[in-house]
Amino acid sequence: MAKRRQPTRRRGREPATAEPSRFQVLRNPWPPMEVLDEAAVATIHEASMRILEESGIDMWDGEARRILSQAGARVDEGARRVWLDRGLVMEAVSRAPGRFTLYARDPAKNLPVGGDHILFGAVGGPPFITDLDGGRRPSRLADLENLVRLIHLSDALTMGGGLLVEPLDLPQRTRHLHAVYADFTLTDKVSRASVMGREVTLDAIMLGALAHARPGDTEAEAVARVMARPVVAGVVSVNSPLRYDGPMLEGLLTLTRHGQVPIITPFIMAGAMSPASMASAVAQQNAETLAGVALCQIARPGNPVVYGGFASPLDMQSGATAFGAPEAAWALLAGAQMARHYRLPFRSSGALTSSQAPDAQAAYESLFSLWPAVMGHTHIITQAAGWLDGGLMASLEKFVIDLELIQMVSRFCERPTVSEESLALEMIHQVGPGGHHLETEHTMAHYRTAFYRPLLSTRMSFENWVQTGRQDAAARANQLWKEMLRRYERPALDEGVDEAMRAYVARRQAEIGA
Amino acid sequence: MAKRRQPTRRRGREPATAEPSRFQVLRNPWPPMEVLDEAAVATIHEASMRILEESGIDMWDGEARRILSQAGARVDEGARRVWLDRGLVMEAVSRAPGRFTLYARDPAKNLPVGGDHILFGAVGGPPFITDLDGGRRPSRLADLENLVRLIHLSDALTMGGGLLVEPLDLPQRTRHLHAVYADFTLTDKVSRASVMGREVTLDAIMLGALAHARPGDTEAEAVARVMARPVVAGVVSVNSPLRYDGPMLEGLLTLTRHGQVPIITPFIMAGAMSPASMASAVAQQNAETLAGVALCQIARPGNPVVYGGFASPLDMQSGATAFGAPEAAWALLAGAQMARHYRLPFRSSGALTSSQAPDAQAAYESLFSLWPAVMGHTHIITQAAGWLDGGLMASLEKFVIDLELIQMVSRFCERPTVSEESLALEMIHQVGPGGHHLETEHTMAHYRTAFYRPLLSTRMSFENWVQTGRQDAAARANQLWKEMLRRYERPALDEGVDEAMRAYVARRQAEIGA
Repeated sequence: MAKRRQPTRRRGREPATAEPSRFQVLRNPWPPMEVLDEAAVATIHEASMRILEESGIDMWDGEARRILSQAGARVDEGARRVWLDRGLVMEAVSRAPGRFTLYARDPAKNLPVGGDHILFGAVGGPPFITDLDGGRRPSRLADLENLVRLIHLSDALTMGGGLLVEPLDLPQRTRHLHAVYADFTLTDKVSRASVMGREVTLDAIMLGALAHARPGDTEAEAVARVMARPVVAGVVSVNSPLRYDGPMLEGLLTLTRHGQVPIITPFIMAGAMSPASMASAVAQQNAETLAGVALCQIARPGNPVVYGGFASPLDMQSGATAFGAPEAAWALLAGAQMARHYRLPFRSSGALTSSQAPDAQAAYESLFSLWPAVMGHTHIITQAAGWLDGGLMASLEKFVIDLELIQMVSRFCERPTVSEESLALEMIHQVGPGGHHLETEHTMAHYRTAFYRPLLSTRMSFENWVQTGRQDAAARANQLWKEMLRRYERPALDEGVDEAMRAYVARRQAEIGA
Repeated sequence: MAKRRQPTRRRGREPATAEPSRFQVLRNPWPPMEVLDEAAVATIHEASMRILEESGIDMWDGEARRILSQAGARVDEGARRVWLDRGLVMEAVSRAPGRFTLYARDPAKNLPVGGDHILFGAVGGPPFITDLDGGRRPSRLADLENLVRLIHLSDALTMGGGLLVEPLDLPQRTRHLHAVYADFTLTDKVSRASVMGREVTLDAIMLGALAHARPGDTEAEAVARVMARPVVAGVVSVNSPLRYDGPMLEGLLTLTRHGQVPIITPFIMAGAMSPASMASAVAQQNAETLAGVALCQIARPGNPVVYGGFASPLDMQSGATAFGAPEAAWALLAGAQMARHYRLPFRSSGALTSSQAPDAQAAYESLFSLWPAVMGHTHIITQAAGWLDGGLMASLEKFVIDLELIQMVSRFCERPTVSEESLALEMIHQVGPGGHHLETEHTMAHYRTAFYRPLLSTRMSFENWVQTGRQDAAARANQLWKEMLRRYERPALDEGVDEAMRAYVARRQAEIGA
């Protein structure tokens, strides 16, 4: 049997500490996996168009309806409903750029969106934080700040934060200010914004503009500067089936009017928010997303916008969403394919799980999101680190586990070369049958870089594992996030910029509080 | 944020018990993922041919050398080395069938090998068994028998056992008899054999023939009956680099001469048994495997044979194999592609991990073997359930976790249809914007079958999870394998057949013991 060849000289080793490597945006070398044939793409397109033409879609914002009405849509003001015909939708969608750049405080961390690039962002929005020491508790600003610090240290995560967890220790109406401030000061990566009404969205944009301002800029000048250089992307959720709530439409339009990036994402539990069929969920998702994309493009033609997919089956036993389910993987791939059909950048999620513990289920469900996300050429993979319990908890140990997963898929995307050098026939000949390659010139020259060095995984022997306390992956992850936080250093930030941002936060706090 | 839409009515539920569903061989609907372009395939082929022509390969069995010498190979008897030129190799390889059938005691469980079929087999060979109750201990026949029972109950696993764990409570020279007897009596699925010398292999074949005999058959008649209807497949390991040991060659030739199926599998730790380069490991694997395939086809043209791949990087920190590493995923896909190039069925592995616990690492490393195995169109995925600790332990909890993984990828391969029925536009229209689909006619008609129902995963609420004892996936798996064993029933077996097998075991035990 093959595994008998396991060498007996396995020495123990401590898991590698997470050393900062070089920031690099992943490129996907593989052709996208296609789960729909051409006819199925056409069928889903046709179904989506019929949904928008015949069922219509609720738009709970007067301004959004006015914009669509002026563009030729049929509107029922009383029902707050809009019917969009395919000519209108497709003409608008065709104006959206297939690729664009998101700008970071550190220009080396600017992010290309689209093409074969893949961006990874962390968890967003849970009201609870958990770790092995303290268990589940309501999340606070300090937890959000720690998550931003971990993001800053993780080259696997190319996008910055946003409302990573709800800072429940702060007043509801002003907490977004502190979340955005943390994101723009504790990391120099691109920020994600919370999109929840005009004011909250505007605050994110203003703080982003200030973070990118030049000395002497007025606030207006700072905003003008980021108009064509987006610094903030935010998820615009659709209240499926077929309803955009007011705050989301305000957010969508506010982002759009300021040249920032709406990531339009219906969240569909098939069987509850769509019929109990993934094909149906994908068609409805397509209708819902394209309606938002069209609104964005009518409001500001050519504005960057992202097509988001987040469809999972309903678990009929529990009434909860079945995150990481096989049908969700298919829906993700089908959604990615529809986005490609319209030449729109695609967003999905990376680390979804229903598990409450950073255990085997958490890992396999996360990979059931991450693998298809990468195979389907997702451009922005959010929720890719730290998500647990259906998104109700952010877990620090899960965060580290997910970093390992992202690093592993990233390494998988570094396609090995097949060349005379890499084939090393001369070494095979020299070592000959029955020899070994452990200390050859070729091995010595390549072993440091040839193979992925894990962050969290151990390959120690059983005996060593017992000696080091029988730690499972979660226990090791617990040590790793602590080590990471110990060596965190805040990235450079111009004092004037910081002052302007702090002044803005203080002013807005006073205004909102008043 | 999307996850806010999480419904609050999540009720707890007990994990589903593993109910026996219908035995069905998985078919892969996706085109195989290709990691090599045509030029790379040609380059690897060329490199392999040069290895066999210039470096040669050790064949530590006089009969194997005689067969190859008579076919025109250059042989150095003193060095026990053989050089094979490409004409000889490729002519022989071309005789191997691209598809064949493995026959089971229950004809409904016959296995098609090749094409778009995927077969799954369990762990093989660990000297230790482990579970959450008893921890690690040397494995015994009773453990092997329990594993066969679990295989029998698991429709996810379409192949039977073999030497699942070493029954260390039995004498080394006769334990294979009891392992094979257990496999042919406790399940009616296709058996895998231990291939370790002529006698052990022959015993597996004889017991297989007796299990398939008709009333009144002599042993010779029983063997003749399975000559063209293979009932046993066995892994022939290559002692890389470039060496076939004597017992493996005896096994290969014994299987071949009786019409049974050698699964030729080099086990390569790149950096130790090949240069530290996955391209090199794949080229060497190709050379080694094709040499064995050629020997098989020269000994008995047209005999079924399988191309196996099992290449992983060496972990330079520990000196151990890096199972489930990203580079291993690439090597698996490249190996599958080479096998397709020669139109040979391909074998890889499914649940490889270096972890000692049934934890997150065990799960994600296993999926890093299983996903590429499925995406690369592996025909036989062995080691797909229960493997832990680099194959040194079989874990009962990991076995259940792996069943869930196999079921999930299997469900992913059930491509949803995109049709008028599945799009259900009428329902979308009827429910309308802002409605819900929870109790519609369509949902009621489909919810039971539309979505995968997990074996192990839970989607219960946090509160329920706390109430049910904060069990992680491993703890739930512990309950599940016990439940499965409680409801195990031995499949029907003709008394005369059982008697003949028991008589054979007794006779051989006496012979070997003498």
